[in-house]
Amino acid sequence: MRMVDLIEKKRDGGELTKEEINFIIEGYTSESIPDYQMSSFLMSVFFKGMTAEETANMTLAMVNSGDQIDLSAIEGIKVDKHSTGGVGDTTTIVLAPLVAAVGVPVAKLSGRGLGHTGGTVDKFESIPGFRSEIEADQFINQVNEVKVAVTGPTGNLTPADKKIYGLRDVTATVNSIPLMASSIMSKKIASGSDAIVLDVKVGAGAFMKDVESAKELAHAMVEIGKNVGRDTMAVISDMDQPLGFAIGNVLEVKEAIDTLRGEGPKDLKELCLTLGSKMVVLAKHAETVEEAREMLEEVIANGKALEKFKEFVIAQGGDASVIDDPFKLARAQYEIPVLAKEDGYVAEIEADSIGTAAMILGAGRATKDSVVDLAVGLMLHKKIGDEVKKGDTIVTIYSNRENVDDVIERIYESYRFSLTKVADPVLVHAEVH
Amino acid sequence: MRMVDLIEKKRDGGELTKEEINFIIEGYTSESIPDYQMSSFLMSVFFKGMTAEETANMTLAMVNSGDQIDLSAIEGIKVDKHSTGGVGDTTTIVLAPLVAAVGVPVAKLSGRGLGHTGGTVDKFESIPGFRSEIEADQFINQVNEVKVAVTGPTGNLTPADKKIYGLRDVTATVNSIPLMASSIMSKKIASGSDAIVLDVKVGAGAFMKDVESAKELAHAMVEIGKNVGRDTMAVISDMDQPLGFAIGNVLEVKEAIDTLRGEGPKDLKELCLTLGSKMVVLAKHAETVEEAREMLEEVIANGKALEKFKEFVIAQGGDASVIDDPFKLARAQYEIPVLAKEDGYVAEIEADSIGTAAMILGAGRATKDSVVDLAVGLMLHKKIGDEVKKGDTIVTIYSNRENVDDVIERIYESYRFSLTKVADPVLVHAEVH
Repeated sequence: MRMVDLIEKKRDGGELTKEEINFIIEGYTSESIPDYQMSSFLMSVFFKGMTAEETANMTLAMVNSGDQIDLSAIEGIKVDKHSTGGVGDTTTIVLAPLVAAVGVPVAKLSGRGLGHTGGTVDKFESIPGFRSEIEADQFINQVNEVKVAVTGPTGNLTPADKKIYGLRDVTATVNSIPLMASSIMSKKIASGSDAIVLDVKVGAGAFMKDVESAKELAHAMVEIGKNVGRDTMAVISDMDQPLGFAIGNVLEVKEAIDTLRGEGPKDLKELCLTLGSKMVVLAKHAETVEEAREMLEEVIANGKALEKFKEFVIAQGGDASVIDDPFKLARAQYEIPVLAKEDGYVAEIEADSIGTAAMILGAGRATKDSVVDLAVGLMLHKKIGDEVKKGDTIVTIYSNRENVDDVIERIYESYRFSLTKVADPVLVHAEVH
Repeated sequence: MRMVDLIEKKRDGGELTKEEINFIIEGYTSESIPDYQMSSFLMSVFFKGMTAEETANMTLAMVNSGDQIDLSAIEGIKVDKHSTGGVGDTTTIVLAPLVAAVGVPVAKLSGRGLGHTGGTVDKFESIPGFRSEIEADQFINQVNEVKVAVTGPTGNLTPADKKIYGLRDVTATVNSIPLMASSIMSKKIASGSDAIVLDVKVGAGAFMKDVESAKELAHAMVEIGKNVGRDTMAVISDMDQPLGFAIGNVLEVKEAIDTLRGEGPKDLKELCLTLGSKMVVLAKHAETVEEAREMLEEVIANGKALEKFKEFVIAQGGDASVIDDPFKLARAQYEIPVLAKEDGYVAEIEADSIGTAAMILGAGRATKDSVVDLAVGLMLHKKIGDEVKKGDTIVTIYSNRENVDDVIERIYESYRFSLTKVADPVLVHAEVH
């Protein structure tokens, strides 16, 4: 087999066999296929796509390129949730204890990642004493006993995906449905979950800008799941504006605690119930999503969800008293209000731009070596559809530096106002099974 | 400027500016742009094409990447001829002295190249004493005095093209009209000619398999010529079967001598007159191709074309007596006839396959380091449309090894016969101005 022939085959719209795809992924991982052939192949895939079978085979080849996590020692069906990434997305912190509170085992492998705020691991670690670097044994035992555990990046998972992702980033081949779908799914499958709930974000603050392409990506991932025997569902959720009010690590943990208590932002709670009820169904702890939703609403109402969060924090070595006294979490030196300049209604909040404002404050990583400041970030007091009077606080900046003119300017640029009332945005656009 | 943005622009069908194309070609030549970005860009060009202006700018950027030959010290309009490559193509050896005989200056830079037989330089060097490595001064003086000189690869011409060509070969991006056109034209322009006649081959033995794509390539090259101020014309000529009878270095020189004497194969003579008359017109030595053709036919008939060849050979240090006594050229040890097995008509000669038969004998280079055996090759006695009786010699093998069973087998595989009369193939399919 010669790589140049396989590039040509894909270039001319041919369908690659399992053996051919294995040859490509194995060859690229072992460096017998050079970057310049791989990038030419990826551009051919960009133009010609891949069939569901090719995409599944590519996913499996990437899974097989490295280690796989074995979760079989955990009782029950392990359901993972994955979001394609947005701004102020606190769902993971809420969902882990929430679905665990109804008995669904949650074995969460999370990264630190680049972005507007830190990864899920950074957020949990804003709780004093919380340790995410725990041994495999402890991790498994904790899921069996407490029903929820989190651990940081572990093992050499999907090295082929890491290598291909790096190459795609510099060769204009990121934006390809089969390549995106196989990249995400390979990581989820290698992480050992039995079933997967996908939260595909759509809108100005997300990678997918329109519902049609978000659906296409969701379909591709659900198809991969089916092809490799993992029960998979997807929800297309809105990211035209940030989810919830908080953007920042400690701020998001606080917001998650509020939500588990039943007092969080409406949109965040709704999305958590939507995603959570699908996780409960896939884990076979309920027959219908309606039944599952009732179970989740009940554990919020009766305090069991918050109790589960405490139990989980204690199990990971964290100080659970922060849950009742959030001031124990890191606190920023300055709280600076950003005031409305005119009367009107919020018509738009550019999620990507306001996310960058949080990153500039130090809430996220611009490069791998950046240090995340857990305390800083933004709280949005006004969201799309809200009425605003001149002088109202639209955003509070939590900062560890006094001069935040650059951040204020960016916040003003991110908000658009209307003189007339604006409709509330749609939160869930579609579901894909 | 960032290469990844330019790849994306081309990927999405955008038109690159002159500055952007210069950035790409200069960056790739100086190695600030890596192979993997270039190959991704080339694949985008494969799918999205380039406008005439982009292609011209790419050509000029490649010309400017290295040295350029200055032929301004040669009087008159210098016209170069380029063939896109076929089997048994002896036109260059005929045309150089032929058009020089009517006063057109021919300053020929030729390579050794890979292929079924050696390059033009190898063929001339089959004449005892002939030296193609001559100094620039001598080259220019000889063209002014004798009207024709040939020299081998000189200077660092179009290094960008060499680098890009090497990459295209291994990334399935050879077959792209703008990339082929700019590659050929950059070399011709850097070689310093004022006007260019292109012989675009089409058919089973050529790179372009159908007349439509050959025309497209020809149009692209003629457009580049116009855009950069070099008068350019193209002829689409047939390469379904080899041109002429000879495939091999000495054999082709002999055939060229026959043709200059008016005794060569009909198709070779006709193509030389077609291409030659266009060269004469572009050099402004005739007003119409009809007039030019008459001039060329006259110098063949009155012996001046052959006389010019002698003069040329002597000027380059060669033994001109070979022209009257071709046995002085290298001669193969064995001459082995290949006989017809049945009565019939020749319906097809697979040019590529029979060219490979000559290469197996040693007539051409399979790799850069192969040594060319000047004496060996094939003479075809029967071409498409010819009647054949069982036992007729269809091909004579000139070999320096006794056992040529592999070559014979390949020759039989290359020939197809018909029981009924077959029409003569079309020689010139179209012209492009």
